[in-house]
Amino acid sequence: MPETRLDLARIRAARRVIDPVFLDTPLYPCEALEPVLGCAVSIKLETANPVRSFKGRGTEVVVSGLAGAVVCASAGNLGQALAWSGRGRGLDVTVVASRYATAAKLDRIRALGARLELVDGDHELARERAAALARRDGIRLVEDSLDLETCEGAATIGLELAAAAPSFDVVLIALGGGALATGVGHVLRSEAPGTEVVCVQPAGAPAMTRSWHARRVVTTGPTDTIADGVAGRRPIPEVLADLLVVADDAVLVSEASIIAGMRLLLEHAGLVVEPSAALGIAAILEDRDRFAGRHVVTVVCGGNVDPAAYHGWVG
Amino acid sequence: MPETRLDLARIRAARRVIDPVFLDTPLYPCEALEPVLGCAVSIKLETANPVRSFKGRGTEVVVSGLAGAVVCASAGNLGQALAWSGRGRGLDVTVVASRYATAAKLDRIRALGARLELVDGDHELARERAAALARRDGIRLVEDSLDLETCEGAATIGLELAAAAPSFDVVLIALGGGALATGVGHVLRSEAPGTEVVCVQPAGAPAMTRSWHARRVVTTGPTDTIADGVAGRRPIPEVLADLLVVADDAVLVSEASIIAGMRLLLEHAGLVVEPSAALGIAAILEDRDRFAGRHVVTVVCGGNVDPAAYHGWVG
Repeated sequence: MPETRLDLARIRAARRVIDPVFLDTPLYPCEALEPVLGCAVSIKLETANPVRSFKGRGTEVVVSGLAGAVVCASAGNLGQALAWSGRGRGLDVTVVASRYATAAKLDRIRALGARLELVDGDHELARERAAALARRDGIRLVEDSLDLETCEGAATIGLELAAAAPSFDVVLIALGGGALATGVGHVLRSEAPGTEVVCVQPAGAPAMTRSWHARRVVTTGPTDTIADGVAGRRPIPEVLADLLVVADDAVLVSEASIIAGMRLLLEHAGLVVEPSAALGIAAILEDRDRFAGRHVVTVVCGGNVDPAAYHGWVG
Repeated sequence: MPETRLDLARIRAARRVIDPVFLDTPLYPCEALEPVLGCAVSIKLETANPVRSFKGRGTEVVVSGLAGAVVCASAGNLGQALAWSGRGRGLDVTVVASRYATAAKLDRIRALGARLELVDGDHELARERAAALARRDGIRLVEDSLDLETCEGAATIGLELAAAAPSFDVVLIALGGGALATGVGHVLRSEAPGTEVVCVQPAGAPAMTRSWHARRVVTTGPTDTIADGVAGRRPIPEVLADLLVVADDAVLVSEASIIAGMRLLLEHAGLVVEPSAALGIAAILEDRDRFAGRHVVTVVCGGNVDPAAYHGWVG
């Protein structure tokens, strides 16, 4: 058993409180990508649900034990998911986000009935503000990746990957705060130990990857990436500690590769994905030899984009 | 029990021989479409699988009892699915298609290892040629919608819809040869009798809809629609007879509405769909009053498009 904050029995229990609309998502080979990428690619699709990202798995676990009010900081997907899960439980949900966040995500948070507070700064400032609100009002603060429920929810993707036959050689996971990577990684380490766990982050937001390589928290200055969902600057020590146990590697990719990945997923898989969801394909593009001839699964973790921005990237 | 050629026990048995990669597809509310369309819309997504359409459900049933060689006519999706299912069983698969069929579909049929024969005419000529090949070589001809396995496979979508809670007021189903409509309709008639079954066809390919209203087979001249997957001219009498039992209505929609539907699914649901898969949304656009305030589910039945053509339609 990998020694992290996570526990397989708790992850299995988490699965039982998650609305089935978020579970057992499509996992299928996309052969059209094979000649382009030089390896067999399977897609784990986390966008075909009410909030178009994997975050609903975690927020369902968060709200399962909750009453009253809850607040989180979000680049947009966690906020949407918490708004959705909270609405179902009659919770009073507040989301703090950067005013520079993806407009489509902010619109959906409002439409789902959450109170949205915008800060004039980046995601780290939103985290500070959310924490201050929680202290002031005495309400539950949901901290993505630090709160175990968010990791356990994401980890249920790992259960579904581990149950698949045939097993995969490599799993490519977008790396931001770390909930997805540590959650999925923990399960694969114990249930599919032969599968390599590779985390992928934009070179323009490299804090967690640098931290993983340095084996200590490395913070950075302002991020510079279109992958808004993974653009943190201050890794959480507890999450890094888990990531050091479960990840085989953490790699950085360029913005050009992320855009190329989005384009390939559109043209060869018919998928509109947000930049974070193309990180896995970007990693293959940047190191074809590493993946050549292997069976790779990439977690397509979100599909919330501003149509105009998406068109500008993908053309 | 609706009196059609279909049988619920056989449909449940069909489910057991279908590769799970085609089953239990996402079914989820897309709230972003609600303010645009004036009704609650849920999506049954049949594009996140190895052949990007629902046809794999049927071809899995077809090949389950088969050895040797098999031939079908196809606008592209059945051929892809038969190639995929047949490859898994070691079958020798031939697909006959119009040389004017969607290039992306023909490319995938070839890539999946099937023999592809093109005819210089439309889908009805491909059907004639496939039948001639089957007679000449003494091999199994798969006739979409006529062969019960194709309807039974499609009908497993109906099982999944009927099992969902809450139930739906209306199910919108693309109407072409009729396998999808009669299959899903049969199950809903018996398992969810309160749900209205509405079939949708392009005004440019109206043969089956006209036949349904006339209660007898009506053939037409050349079709004129971008919805290649449903562009038949000669309805099959046995399929029409079933459709008369299970459908509440059959409506025609314009090309402009189909394109508007594709655009809405792209912008508000992040889905790249082929024209046939936008027929349901097109029907809502053309008759908003009919659906106002109701809970509608639309089966997004396929996502195979030529990127250039798609861009030309959706802009």
